[in-house]
Amino acid sequence: MTTVRDIVHHLEFLMPWSNGECETVDQLVFGGLEDLVHGVAVTFIASYEVLQEAVQQGANLIISHEGLFYQHMGGLDALNQDPVCSEKLEYIVKNNLAVYRLHDRPHRTRPDWIVQGMAKRLGWRDMMGDGYRTFFDAPIVQLPPVSLGQLINQIKKSFCLSQVRVVGHSALNCRRVGLLPGYRGGGAAAIPYLRQADLDVIIVGEGPEWETAEYVRDAVAMGHAKAMVVIGHQQSEEAGMEMIADSLRDLVAPIPVRFIPLYPVFRVL
Amino acid sequence: MTTVRDIVHHLEFLMPWSNGECETVDQLVFGGLEDLVHGVAVTFIASYEVLQEAVQQGANLIISHEGLFYQHMGGLDALNQDPVCSEKLEYIVKNNLAVYRLHDRPHRTRPDWIVQGMAKRLGWRDMMGDGYRTFFDAPIVQLPPVSLGQLINQIKKSFCLSQVRVVGHSALNCRRVGLLPGYRGGGAAAIPYLRQADLDVIIVGEGPEWETAEYVRDAVAMGHAKAMVVIGHQQSEEAGMEMIADSLRDLVAPIPVRFIPLYPVFRVL
Repeated sequence: MTTVRDIVHHLEFLMPWSNGECETVDQLVFGGLEDLVHGVAVTFIASYEVLQEAVQQGANLIISHEGLFYQHMGGLDALNQDPVCSEKLEYIVKNNLAVYRLHDRPHRTRPDWIVQGMAKRLGWRDMMGDGYRTFFDAPIVQLPPVSLGQLINQIKKSFCLSQVRVVGHSALNCRRVGLLPGYRGGGAAAIPYLRQADLDVIIVGEGPEWETAEYVRDAVAMGHAKAMVVIGHQQSEEAGMEMIADSLRDLVAPIPVRFIPLYPVFRVL
Repeated sequence: MTTVRDIVHHLEFLMPWSNGECETVDQLVFGGLEDLVHGVAVTFIASYEVLQEAVQQGANLIISHEGLFYQHMGGLDALNQDPVCSEKLEYIVKNNLAVYRLHDRPHRTRPDWIVQGMAKRLGWRDMMGDGYRTFFDAPIVQLPPVSLGQLINQIKKSFCLSQVRVVGHSALNCRRVGLLPGYRGGGAAAIPYLRQADLDVIIVGEGPEWETAEYVRDAVAMGHAKAMVVIGHQQSEEAGMEMIADSLRDLVAPIPVRFIPLYPVFRVL
């Protein structure tokens, strides 16, 4: 007899970030803490299709990194009376689903589980240096020298990507690599990281296109040996959520815990 | 004898947005209002290479839509002691360049010049309906029915793009199209626009990847006829800045006014 509360306790055990007074988006968005859990589905974002797949697999607790209703903060109010939101909401209610948003806890635990997932997917977990101190966990991965072109091939293979977006020369020699999953590619965080941690290249989920990318464009034009690879928000964070699913599975057996991957949100045409 | 002040007056004449008490990033960032202007370069972003090209062409006033130092608000403080910023700064000073940031005025004038530029590039300026009232100028373009696949081909041809990022079915019948240049692709603005203006498809510059894109993904999964095409921030705004260059040219002759396009900031590999 495992309840949602039990699963939340397991998550807190795995990722022992002490919330304190800190604001967080993490919470049980639907369902009750005393609901009995028959199966758990872990995912990057609880899209409509992910919810359907979870139901089909018999899961009634969905653990989702990003929110259900297309915004980081806040509830359903802003999208009130939207037919897509209403239909999603109805589906959740009709199927008695519990949905838990798990965003800040994995990011704020040290080391950051999402960063670790990204490093694991790249086979780099043994190459993480001490890191660079910022408000988030910013690792410095120390590689045997490799060209940017080779690195890009490795990234595409590791994340099963048909393509990545790149600023920098393919011949660039890369030794020190930074990892910025999710929306951490913005200039305020990524530019000082790239420079102060003496990185050759940063691999980011996403970020405003004319901040860090334009910085790297200018750096390259001036002859500085810098580069940036953008792999997509979803692609950069899924591996971390899969790692959470794997760890949770051992703790809650025999309750099944499944990781549900998503197709890339964009088709490239 | 044309001064920077004269050029600014021409810009105000072309784009008669009355600033009032409204906060704005538009200003003369370098140079003085009484500096004599020998040539004007207009661009989406005054990258290091754009500055070099402007100097080579004899321009000493650069009009740039986005900022010089990789952030929307604020000055150089945050990036103090950064070698890329220092080198860019030195180049500007050494070459006695004046740099004027022209971001809010074109966007806030009605109709929005950047939206108009995007529509012009697509050959749609005669197909703009009344628009949808938001805090920014959101047009409704009424097209003879066309499939999303055909529309994508037209977009790629118009903006000289090797690819776009798409959510939605290629067979979707498109009649009502929304234009969201720059960073307007976020959920708070784009989702109500898509829905309340009864649009089939929105064409956006950029926006956080898990807001509007995930909304459209869910909408499509539920069978709603919606789509989203992402063309890139720079690509969505360059045409508007080129239109400003064309209009300014007539007013300030014989002072040469050149539009300087940029290569796409990302290579797709």
